[in-house]
Amino acid sequence: MRPDTATRATRASTPSPALQDRYDDVRAATMALAAPLSGEDCALQSMPDASPVKWHLAHTTWFFETFLLVPSLLAYAPFDDAFRVLFNSYYNSVGDRYPRPQRGLLSRPDLATVCAYRTHVDAAMRALLARGLATDVAELVELGVHHEQQHQELILTDVKHLLSHNPTGPVYRAGWPLSAVRPQPLAWHRYEGGVVPIGHDGNGFAFDNEGPAHRVMLAPYALASRPVTHGEFADFIADGGYKRPELWLSLGLDAVRERGWRAPLYWSREDDGRWQTFTLHGFVEIDPHAPVCHVSYFEADAFARWAGARLPTEFEWEHAARNVEVDGNFVERGALHPLACAGDATAAAAAPGQLYGDVWEWTSSSYAPYPRYAPAAGAVGEYNGKFMCGQYVLRGGSCATPRSHVRATYRNFFPPDARWQFSGIRLARDV
Amino acid sequence: MRPDTATRATRASTPSPALQDRYDDVRAATMALAAPLSGEDCALQSMPDASPVKWHLAHTTWFFETFLLVPSLLAYAPFDDAFRVLFNSYYNSVGDRYPRPQRGLLSRPDLATVCAYRTHVDAAMRALLARGLATDVAELVELGVHHEQQHQELILTDVKHLLSHNPTGPVYRAGWPLSAVRPQPLAWHRYEGGVVPIGHDGNGFAFDNEGPAHRVMLAPYALASRPVTHGEFADFIADGGYKRPELWLSLGLDAVRERGWRAPLYWSREDDGRWQTFTLHGFVEIDPHAPVCHVSYFEADAFARWAGARLPTEFEWEHAARNVEVDGNFVERGALHPLACAGDATAAAAAPGQLYGDVWEWTSSSYAPYPRYAPAAGAVGEYNGKFMCGQYVLRGGSCATPRSHVRATYRNFFPPDARWQFSGIRLARDV
Amino acid sequence: MRPDTATRATRASTPSPALQDRYDDVRAATMALAAPLSGEDCALQSMPDASPVKWHLAHTTWFFETFLLVPSLLAYAPFDDAFRVLFNSYYNSVGDRYPRPQRGLLSRPDLATVCAYRTHVDAAMRALLARGLATDVAELVELGVHHEQQHQELILTDVKHLLSHNPTGPVYRAGWPLSAVRPQPLAWHRYEGGVVPIGHDGNGFAFDNEGPAHRVMLAPYALASRPVTHGEFADFIADGGYKRPELWLSLGLDAVRERGWRAPLYWSREDDGRWQTFTLHGFVEIDPHAPVCHVSYFEADAFARWAGARLPTEFEWEHAARNVEVDGNFVERGALHPLACAGDATAAAAAPGQLYGDVWEWTSSSYAPYPRYAPAAGAVGEYNGKFMCGQYVLRGGSCATPRSHVRATYRNFFPPDARWQFSGIRLARDV
Amino acid sequence: MRPDTATRATRASTPSPALQDRYDDVRAATMALAAPLSGEDCALQSMPDASPVKWHLAHTTWFFETFLLVPSLLAYAPFDDAFRVLFNSYYNSVGDRYPRPQRGLLSRPDLATVCAYRTHVDAAMRALLARGLATDVAELVELGVHHEQQHQELILTDVKHLLSHNPTGPVYRAGWPLSAVRPQPLAWHRYEGGVVPIGHDGNGFAFDNEGPAHRVMLAPYALASRPVTHGEFADFIADGGYKRPELWLSLGLDAVRERGWRAPLYWSREDDGRWQTFTLHGFVEIDPHAPVCHVSYFEADAFARWAGARLPTEFEWEHAARNVEVDGNFVERGALHPLACAGDATAAAAAPGQLYGDVWEWTSSSYAPYPRYAPAAGAVGEYNGKFMCGQYVLRGGSCATPRSHVRATYRNFFPPDARWQFSGIRLARDV
Repeated sequence: MRPDTATRATRASTPSPALQDRYDDVRAATMALAAPLSGEDCALQSMPDASPVKWHLAHTTWFFETFLLVPSLLAYAPFDDAFRVLFNSYYNSVGDRYPRPQRGLLSRPDLATVCAYRTHVDAAMRALLARGLATDVAELVELGVHHEQQHQELILTDVKHLLSHNPTGPVYRAGWPLSAVRPQPLAWHRYEGGVVPIGHDGNGFAFDNEGPAHRVMLAPYALASRPVTHGEFADFIADGGYKRPELWLSLGLDAVRERGWRAPLYWSREDDGRWQTFTLHGFVEIDPHAPVCHVSYFEADAFARWAGARLPTEFEWEHAARNVEVDGNFVERGALHPLACAGDATAAAAAPGQLYGDVWEWTSSSYAPYPRYAPAAGAVGEYNGKFMCGQYVLRGGSCATPRSHVRATYRNFFPPDARWQFSGIRLARDV
Repeated sequence: MRPDTATRATRASTPSPALQDRYDDVRAATMALAAPLSGEDCALQSMPDASPVKWHLAHTTWFFETFLLVPSLLAYAPFDDAFRVLFNSYYNSVGDRYPRPQRGLLSRPDLATVCAYRTHVDAAMRALLARGLATDVAELVELGVHHEQQHQELILTDVKHLLSHNPTGPVYRAGWPLSAVRPQPLAWHRYEGGVVPIGHDGNGFAFDNEGPAHRVMLAPYALASRPVTHGEFADFIADGGYKRPELWLSLGLDAVRERGWRAPLYWSREDDGRWQTFTLHGFVEIDPHAPVCHVSYFEADAFARWAGARLPTEFEWEHAARNVEVDGNFVERGALHPLACAGDATAAAAAPGQLYGDVWEWTSSSYAPYPRYAPAAGAVGEYNGKFMCGQYVLRGGSCATPRSHVRATYRNFFPPDARWQFSGIRLARDV
Repeated sequence: MRPDTATRATRASTPSPALQDRYDDVRAATMALAAPLSGEDCALQSMPDASPVKWHLAHTTWFFETFLLVPSLLAYAPFDDAFRVLFNSYYNSVGDRYPRPQRGLLSRPDLATVCAYRTHVDAAMRALLARGLATDVAELVELGVHHEQQHQELILTDVKHLLSHNPTGPVYRAGWPLSAVRPQPLAWHRYEGGVVPIGHDGNGFAFDNEGPAHRVMLAPYALASRPVTHGEFADFIADGGYKRPELWLSLGLDAVRERGWRAPLYWSREDDGRWQTFTLHGFVEIDPHAPVCHVSYFEADAFARWAGARLPTEFEWEHAARNVEVDGNFVERGALHPLACAGDATAAAAAPGQLYGDVWEWTSSSYAPYPRYAPAAGAVGEYNGKFMCGQYVLRGGSCATPRSHVRATYRNFFPPDARWQFSGIRLARDV
Repeated sequence: MRPDTATRATRASTPSPALQDRYDDVRAATMALAAPLSGEDCALQSMPDASPVKWHLAHTTWFFETFLLVPSLLAYAPFDDAFRVLFNSYYNSVGDRYPRPQRGLLSRPDLATVCAYRTHVDAAMRALLARGLATDVAELVELGVHHEQQHQELILTDVKHLLSHNPTGPVYRAGWPLSAVRPQPLAWHRYEGGVVPIGHDGNGFAFDNEGPAHRVMLAPYALASRPVTHGEFADFIADGGYKRPELWLSLGLDAVRERGWRAPLYWSREDDGRWQTFTLHGFVEIDPHAPVCHVSYFEADAFARWAGARLPTEFEWEHAARNVEVDGNFVERGALHPLACAGDATAAAAAPGQLYGDVWEWTSSSYAPYPRYAPAAGAVGEYNGKFMCGQYVLRGGSCATPRSHVRATYRNFFPPDARWQFSGIRLARDV
């Protein structure tokens, strides 16, 4: 997911106590994620693609202030006028923005002030939510809640990236090892294809890039019964995977060479040849049974070629996941790392395992608008389509995603060289 | 088209005098393109994406030597062993390559030697062609001929780019003005869509990225009756097109700002505000009626948004062009610049005008493999798919393309910021 | 001053209660500088050349731990073994170093831990100082104290640079306006030159780059009676100074163009055309009477050429300052910004005004070893000379320098494009 | 020497047949250097620091046209108005310039046209020289002649750099091996120093950076009896010289690491461990007895430190060379590579050997103006001093320098990372 993306809901939701509860729950969940972190942890930025935790805390709040409170709550007084610019992500129609690569240069406002900002806005939001809201306003609240859930995942991936630079090996949450499950042999689930429905049907919340619903022609295909594991990826490395040009896309080979990639992000080889990785639980030995994560699209694609398979299209993935319950290793489980498949991963299972949670699964589909897609009017929808170039779609959510945030139609997207998300590999093949 | 792409034919062609004639014709056409150029013109490289003309002359010859003569003509003695590395483009399985950005550092072999190399290989090829060839060998000859036609276009675009840096305004071919035709008002051709056939059916030569043939679901759509003109694009500029963030993809806006784009490549504004452009006929005032060219995908996309339209998908384009005769302003016409539409461009015409020739038409389709696509075995097919990332498909050929080189299914491809090809804009819209 | 430079004293000092007091005073002064700053202020790094305040606090402590406590205090237990690498600046013989550009990625240890580190080391240092120290050990203590004073200045210049990026205009210390003194007209002090003594005579502490003492031949010259002011520099800008190639060194012109320099660092032009600047007191209107600061060598050199003068050599400066009392606007005065000359700046004065304090004065001397200079043995002297390339010498100290840190022979040095120090301009001319 | 530097003579010379002869000789010598090269060889540019040979041929001609013929020969018609911009190196007062890094993008004018340009200007110059010339005009002719000699050396160094990129190993002049002389052991020549005269005394031509003559104080010192050899430098490499931080200036170590330096420019190690180097005679095994060349200032400085010595200052060098006859391995000898010392290199010799010719000798003096230096008025002197920053002085000329071009006071200068000149090492030490 593009970190700052916030798009408009496609249909109305009714204002209700449920919405108030959901607002409160999501806002509290954000604070809980920041709880183990100091002001210094929250202020630093490790790369232009990542933002300081403090910035996430403030920007999600800015969203409610800018798009809900200022337009809809007559008596509302902004917390600090400077925040309008400081915490705007990319909304040109809202005005100027503080440069993204410099978000880590803001020691002020400090963390305590940002928390006060959250409290100030929450109080006003509660006043607003206590009213009967017009449908479009209620939709914006729901959008803001989903927007904040996106940033919850980014808080985890961004602080992981930051802490990984610290040779003292900071631990965000102590809890390793996570499980001792051994993975089942990889099996294949077959789909007949044909003309199948794709996209969100308008029943409940969805981002607008999930629609319009339409039909797509699929050839018969098969999906792997579980994601590729750390151990399987270590085999790829041991087989010279990073050194064999024939396995790589041309741009992927460029990335391997220019950046010196020899393994997924966060992996390092110990003197005895074993692989270690940095997790939110600190530096640990890799669990060979857990799904591999922190691979780029290029690495996912090369692995698939090495394995004699390919990545699925986003349509193949969605078709397979359409009737599968959204359940799995999400952020609420607390593992904060992918887990070995504990369920049935044989071909006899009703569906492939771990479609949801654990790792975002790279698809071979470049991120593009669905037929007849049109961005919504106004600031929140101003740029819905502007990121539809140079990115690939990922599906299914990860161990850092809130469970209520994901759907079968959900389209996450990142550039093919991005590795700091919990991104993994689901194999597919023609049948 | 990726400059050095050469892919394997999908089916057999019979060796025949026709193949010999075609070989001779294409090889002679290449030399004719180089005829107006000096050794110095042919040695220089203006940017890493472009190659010296001399390199094109040698590399196309290297192709026949490496893939035909060395394996298939027992008595063949290579012209110079060093050329195996010097003129390899990107075939890892053939061995080392001289670095692409340094192709302009080779003063030796000089142009005369490269011409002798061509003569040497042509003589041997004629000996080979005089035999009865096995089908797969004949296919390779045909592939080499099409490969050389690709490089014919690149000779023109690359030398144009080089000469454009020379303030003395060199003229490759004197012939301006080209025509005085006024464009007709833009009309729309409507298509009903449905499940339509896409891709090459195997009847005659095609590159392997044109297949396998398959079916795609299309919604109803309309295509513009002619390409966008220089004059229309000047209106876009005058309306602040380059300064309005809401018209641009995010990466496109980055490109505009970082590279200071204010107009298509080669345009410059004269003191009186009129637009001048550099052509193969030297510096000239823009012809407002001729199709605009040398725009990137980003500019094509932004223009379409400004015009209240969009770019077509490659499938929409192919469906419309499927039964249209391949005719138009190709390189053989000698204009070497797009020409105003001389035919019927009303909605009553049988098909949109200028689908073929004049300018390559950017589509909104990112370059990806068709379902069940698999690269051919062996060196020539080694990397058929490795460029299928980060590029967009263009269709229809240009004023620098040989007519016999193009088909309805032909897929050219370039990164979205490429501007030195004769790339233009065909609008589409939903109906 | 190269931020991390620490060089060895040239002769012995006697261990004494005076040394203990001096140690305590300097350590306390460092903490006082950090007192107005939060943990977040102290953790951030605004550019590779600057370090986080927290890093300065820790590195100066590391110096005493590494070079005094570990070798000389038998019972000493290091505070944290990881700090040996984390807070090493550039001593290869001490071992690995954490990369300088990533000093701003260390949220841990946090500020409180670093303060505890200081307390731990101070206690051990007091135990050490209470003993009778060998001469060479006492020398190292004195060196560490001077090293820490260098970093005191860097704390101010680095945090100023950081805060300048914050659009909310943080105030390090409130105290503007500073003075209302009007500058006196610039007069000239004449010197006859000849063979004059240069360099430190060994009486008291000095860095080893200040020696050996030797003799230099000087032609007659004159020095300006005071530094160039903000107002005079604004005149240079108004006269097109940044746009006139004939005023600039070739590399200086490159810097002006590539970096878009239009004024000294921290200056911005308000809508009404007046110049504002960022100070440790926040954003203020420039005081035209105060010495200009935050100019590069290139700007100092261009200004001098524009003014029909030149910069002095470091020998001319030292010869003039040799018998002048070290007094002026140093950090102890609390202004933290240069002040207009309050004393006698006429030609009748005994010496030029403001030679000490206010602003470091760029000289035309590139930083090079004095004849027969040899670096000291051991880690602290390991690399005394390795920075003697690509830098220019500055003299006299600034409003951010501790008074006891400066001498007539003191040689500060920075690359010619550095602007974030309090660097200004003293004019000279031939007579 | 900054490639395009041309500075004004310090005193008058009388117009005479001698000047005409000298003009003709130097112009013919330039053409002789280009004789072995094709138009393609002469058109290419291998890096921004180097220029195409064709550009050198044209620029030196432009100098005479611009500074002599246009102002002084009433009837003169410029050969081509476009050349005023195309072949201006860096004279802002003459007007615009074609960008230096793009000099290799000019296929036109072709080499034949540039030769015609030379002939055109030579004819006009002969007409001018046949007159009685005013002193200042005659001085300009002499300046132009010396300027052209500078570019003669650059023709050789630049074409060597270009040809070195060609894996076919082009030979500019066949003549290897050059000599079989074994070097004598290194001895030392002692100098007492004191206050010594430095700089040009005005007797004969000199560039203005060689004056004003003045006095400098020198401590006693010694100079090596011959330059460092290829063999000695190979010993430095074998002893880990490039891997030992303590030997290097900080910026030098950065250069070693960022650019992967492992040996002097043009050296490559063969499979059997022996060193090969590229010369104007093609690829050859290094001659261990010949002076090492193509080392940067950083490498020269590190070697000297490794050898327990140092580089001389330019004043020490000039003092030693002041009364030594200018003779040695200059370009006229035809070796085009440094030669082992054939003369007396013992301490008993009257002076150190090979002070002149073979290799330019890096000094530890950064390039700075002499006291009271003032640039000349007018275009040719416009920027005499603008390169006096960021460069080091080299002395004595090389195997690519015309003998009549060098003097004891001659100051060549290059940035400390430059390696493509014939730059070598003369050791010095304190006594």
